Amino acid sequence: MSLDDILSRVDADLDQSLGRLFDLLRIDSISTDPAHAAACDRAADWLVEDLAGLGFDISKRPTPGHPMVVGHSAGDGPHLVFYGHYDVQPVDPLDLWDRSPFDPSLEDTPNGKVIRGRGACDDKGQLMTFVEACRAWKSVTGSLPGRLSIFLEGEEESGSPSLVPFMQENAAELRGDLALICDTGLFDSRVPAITTMLRGLLAEEVVIHGPNKDLHSGMFGGLARNPIHVLNRVIAGLHDDTGRVTLPGFYDQVPDLPEDLRTQWQNLGFDHGAFLDGVGLHHPAGEADRSPLEQLWSRPTCEVNGISGGYEGAGFKTVIPAQASAKISFRLVGQQDPEKIHQSFVDYVTAMLPPDCRAEFPLGHGAKASEMSTAHPGFEAARQALSDEWPDPAAFIGCGGSIPIAGHFQDILGMDSMLIGFARDDDQIHSPNEKYDLESFHKGIRSWVRILDAINRAA
Amino acid sequence: MSLDDILSRVDADLDQSLGRLFDLLRIDSISTDPAHAAACDRAADWLVEDLAGLGFDISKRPTPGHPMVVGHSAGDGPHLVFYGHYDVQPVDPLDLWDRSPFDPSLEDTPNGKVIRGRGACDDKGQLMTFVEACRAWKSVTGSLPGRLSIFLEGEEESGSPSLVPFMQENAAELRGDLALICDTGLFDSRVPAITTMLRGLLAEEVVIHGPNKDLHSGMFGGLARNPIHVLNRVIAGLHDDTGRVTLPGFYDQVPDLPEDLRTQWQNLGFDHGAFLDGVGLHHPAGEADRSPLEQLWSRPTCEVNGISGGYEGAGFKTVIPAQASAKISFRLVGQQDPEKIHQSFVDYVTAMLPPDCRAEFPLGHGAKASEMSTAHPGFEAARQALSDEWPDPAAFIGCGGSIPIAGHFQDILGMDSMLIGFARDDDQIHSPNEKYDLESFHKGIRSWVRILDAINRAA
Repeated sequence: MSLDDILSRVDADLDQSLGRLFDLLRIDSISTDPAHAAACDRAADWLVEDLAGLGFDISKRPTPGHPMVVGHSAGDGPHLVFYGHYDVQPVDPLDLWDRSPFDPSLEDTPNGKVIRGRGACDDKGQLMTFVEACRAWKSVTGSLPGRLSIFLEGEEESGSPSLVPFMQENAAELRGDLALICDTGLFDSRVPAITTMLRGLLAEEVVIHGPNKDLHSGMFGGLARNPIHVLNRVIAGLHDDTGRVTLPGFYDQVPDLPEDLRTQWQNLGFDHGAFLDGVGLHHPAGEADRSPLEQLWSRPTCEVNGISGGYEGAGFKTVIPAQASAKISFRLVGQQDPEKIHQSFVDYVTAMLPPDCRAEFPLGHGAKASEMSTAHPGFEAARQALSDEWPDPAAFIGCGGSIPIAGHFQDILGMDSMLIGFARDDDQIHSPNEKYDLESFHKGIRSWVRILDAINRAA
Repeated sequence: MSLDDILSRVDADLDQSLGRLFDLLRIDSISTDPAHAAACDRAADWLVEDLAGLGFDISKRPTPGHPMVVGHSAGDGPHLVFYGHYDVQPVDPLDLWDRSPFDPSLEDTPNGKVIRGRGACDDKGQLMTFVEACRAWKSVTGSLPGRLSIFLEGEEESGSPSLVPFMQENAAELRGDLALICDTGLFDSRVPAITTMLRGLLAEEVVIHGPNKDLHSGMFGGLARNPIHVLNRVIAGLHDDTGRVTLPGFYDQVPDLPEDLRTQWQNLGFDHGAFLDGVGLHHPAGEADRSPLEQLWSRPTCEVNGISGGYEGAGFKTVIPAQASAKISFRLVGQQDPEKIHQSFVDYVTAMLPPDCRAEFPLGHGAKASEMSTAHPGFEAARQALSDEWPDPAAFIGCGGSIPIAGHFQDILGMDSMLIGFARDDDQIHSPNEKYDLESFHKGIRSWVRILDAINRAA
């Protein structure tokens, strides 16, 4: 057999590959919503059945939350551990979707064909690029590509509460030579990327309580404390006028960008105007003294992801509510410690509470940022393989998102992670009308064939 | 016949009066929610049928919104125009109700029996005190108590969009010697009240738009403008540290409290500690340099009644939302002009918008504050009648709520209004578990019998 035979098989089988992905996309595996727990279980079962059919010794593993899917192939060469997640984000606001989120379709667009549906990119489409690469390999050669483990999670979009205990309890089984994580993006449509810097994430919820019931704002307004006002003051104080986060100590463990990375990133020629234009914006809104790519990749942030209080229905209701709440995420970089920042946030809010108000903090879990070592020879092999598949050479880049699994591979299993994915900036992950370019799916499968071949040859 | 005969009939018929009120309370006439339009119509029909049975020449009058109910009796004496409203507030949060809001019940409590249900007080229970007084009068004397008009609205809880045009178009029919409005409260359980000062209301909604879709806060956070942050800064800036509203010109037409009213109010011995304690609060939260009763009755306010943006469901979603919105009410006093304050609010918000954001203002309607003349001899007659019914003498008081109808009677029809009601501070109007004390209902009916008798005698 030759590499070209396998790549040709990928091309020939693309329709069937798409059909399988659509089957997986039809499963509404929203992990954060307990009403969808059965769907998460079905997605895990679907993957077990599909991967068992390829020859993996694979099973569904229970956790206190949604199950893991773990399997292995008995091959030669470096032991590669592939990670992806089968759960997806919630779909609201549902009225902004052009079709049902779990009724996937292939659509023609001015930029080519796209796969539309919740999870089309994040992360079902991405993880299936790897599965389909294995399938083509098996189909042509009769065996799987080397010594592989598969490790699929169902709680990535809901804070991964079971992940660390599961990795600790199953460390011997999950430990390999290098982790492959498919949950990131291309730099752009021509430049594939290996992501070597990931921001961490601290997820907070704050609930401000005031009166013991909702009050009539005419009868009580002026005298009674309004928790929405308190919450708004708390949030308004989280940033200063230059866009910096005001929490004491927040920037203590934030390193400046190394000069070599700054140069590399400048050479990428990032067009922040075009990036923002795609979402209807035109002006960078973060720290005034940082470049747009720094704001996105190497600077910490504080964003309110949701706010709620009082009457939110149609019409008007003159109420002073008993409580108001906000969901707030901090993106972390460098050595920022989620626990310290959680405490700093709690202290900050508590100090701002007026009499008669109290605050609850139901969340407060997080993960540190990750910076990958690129010393493993797999990195250079993969960079070359990606460069062979795509128009322009591959780049090592940063990513604003948080993929805590990379840190866990390092901390718990002592493994380096290679983050390779084929998402585009306009894929609308976490938003209505999520999509994955057919080209991302197709060339993604071909990329993994090349990468697995290159790593095994390099070993 | 004697007054005592009618009062005895009220006592004897109380159970039947309650039964009729329960029938009306079972109709879910939430005016602000289009899904309840048919229920509003049913409530109007119910009242037309009931009042026609008492001998009123009465009918349902169409408007562009919910219908009015208007009727007349052909008697002697001063022409009294009774106003009430048959629509009610929304019921959410539904999970805080101890029983279904539209399944009324009579409950024993440590403070006596109460009628529980949405509208039990505001305003179905209150308006039925007048209807039942008419019924007892008719039952004993064979005719209705003098020359009455009935004028019932179905949009009071949703901004009364049809009220002013309807009053203008039907001015000749609706004009009388004195308006009786039953939508206010007792001063306390011993002291009945005639309300002579009412705050006005300006209802605003502001929607801040940022990106053209919801964004992933990892991919875009730090660079993309977050509309929740903008909204929070806008709201946080509406009050200064002393509790004053910051809108330019907001206090221009706010008079200081006249010395005689200040003295009267001081003599009422208002216990703000007990008032706040009933709702789980202990510290006045409004303007630091004003007394609690001033904060409630004679000072303007700005309260956020609802706020919404981003992900509000269970769990967490790392989104930068396309928009965020708030519902804000301003209580107005003195000569504050709703249109000027609306413009000041729009200008304030617009000036705070950063690049890439725009604001919408879907509402912005309001009514000025009202101060009643008490010159009509009916005021003294009613004060004496109320004092005869209740343990302590009646007081002339202010009210923090907004009852724009009183201003409309003055401006459109040139009539004085007498606001008499039997609500208590703990009736939880606009909140879950709304109630009306059985004593309020019973003595309320008896009070109207006495008042109608006294006014007719005084004429």
